[in-house]
Amino acid sequence: MRIAVLGTGEVGRRLATKLVSLGHEVAMGSRTADNAEAVKWAEEHGGAHGTFADAAGPAELVVNATGGLVSLAVLESAGAENLRGKVLVDVSNALDFSEGFPPKVLTPDGGSLAEQLQKAFPETRVVKTLNTMTNTVMVEPDRVPGDHNVFLSGDDEGAKAVVADLLRSFGWPSGRILDLGDLSSARATEQLVQLWLRLYGMFGTGDFNFSVSVAGSAGFAAS
Amino acid sequence: MRIAVLGTGEVGRRLATKLVSLGHEVAMGSRTADNAEAVKWAEEHGGAHGTFADAAGPAELVVNATGGLVSLAVLESAGAENLRGKVLVDVSNALDFSEGFPPKVLTPDGGSLAEQLQKAFPETRVVKTLNTMTNTVMVEPDRVPGDHNVFLSGDDEGAKAVVADLLRSFGWPSGRILDLGDLSSARATEQLVQLWLRLYGMFGTGDFNFSVSVAGSAGFAAS
Repeated sequence: MRIAVLGTGEVGRRLATKLVSLGHEVAMGSRTADNAEAVKWAEEHGGAHGTFADAAGPAELVVNATGGLVSLAVLESAGAENLRGKVLVDVSNALDFSEGFPPKVLTPDGGSLAEQLQKAFPETRVVKTLNTMTNTVMVEPDRVPGDHNVFLSGDDEGAKAVVADLLRSFGWPSGRILDLGDLSSARATEQLVQLWLRLYGMFGTGDFNFSVSVAGSAGFAAS
Repeated sequence: MRIAVLGTGEVGRRLATKLVSLGHEVAMGSRTADNAEAVKWAEEHGGAHGTFADAAGPAELVVNATGGLVSLAVLESAGAENLRGKVLVDVSNALDFSEGFPPKVLTPDGGSLAEQLQKAFPETRVVKTLNTMTNTVMVEPDRVPGDHNVFLSGDDEGAKAVVADLLRSFGWPSGRILDLGDLSSARATEQLVQLWLRLYGMFGTGDFNFSVSVAGSAGFAAS
């Protein structure tokens, strides 16, 4: 699949590298066409790079791996026409460190960042996922022991099915992919980042994840 | 120990009953001295009942099991002099259903309900805990399989130690009691209720709980 990864930070590079290793054609998008991180990544891993619009244009699926505070501007820069009809995998979190630690987790329009993006790009199929863990665990769930979970939120069932396939290719078993429902459920996972930050401070490592244990249950089907 | 449980709802009755079964002297507090639920509970379980102030006055430890939207008013009714120096176990959540489901989880003063209560009663030792699960799991953790967790937040280490002892007496092993730090960490667990509500809708049961799985770890010491 042709995939654009928007964002050249640690999350974007980790996801882009994993996607290349799985055989996808990956373009890393950034504000400028010659972002140093993107150029370096593309050389090392055999991907492409360019502006947000360059990357998104030919892509079949777009990953938003930019900081949540700038995601809306990034997608506007990528261009609605380059996002139309496509699955947008939103892994971002809107952390406001302006008043120090712990950061505030912003809720744009009183809801979630994912809903804000969906509202701004109504013809794009936004799926929120992977936003509740560190980037190493996203692409290598076995780093953490146990039946820990990844969550999915989105209004488009077909888009969620595509993303669930992608998650399975990352190593997430179907029974550990929990589809929380429509995109408003992203409010719940975006806020979970507050607990993640506390636990990160406590454990001194990001190699942890959340699990949900249920009485009398042996797992749940993914979408 | 002499314990006041403020609130006559399902959570308050469940906790009060467990505390009586563990040998504590329990008084259930409510708005009026002759609340029907409190009278019935006291008759059935051998506890006492009375107003919020009646219950809190002689107590060594006070449990806030009222709805988060009314907790501040309830504690004012209990009276600062009846709460002074005491451990207040705050299990409440501030759920605003005024705009339907999912409810908003209110963040008073931009923080947590627990911090709001601490600020209003600076001489009371507020500990937030048990607010991330349904009441049956609070007092019977083995209803849910696996090494799921209960969280603790509070500014007073001594108070947290008292509450950790209480949790152990409920059946929570030390390694599953996660002390998140000061009371501002209650923001993280109060917001977790958003995810809880989604999962409740998905599973159709409240008999589930959250776990944290960490790479290379075999558990954590309680405070």
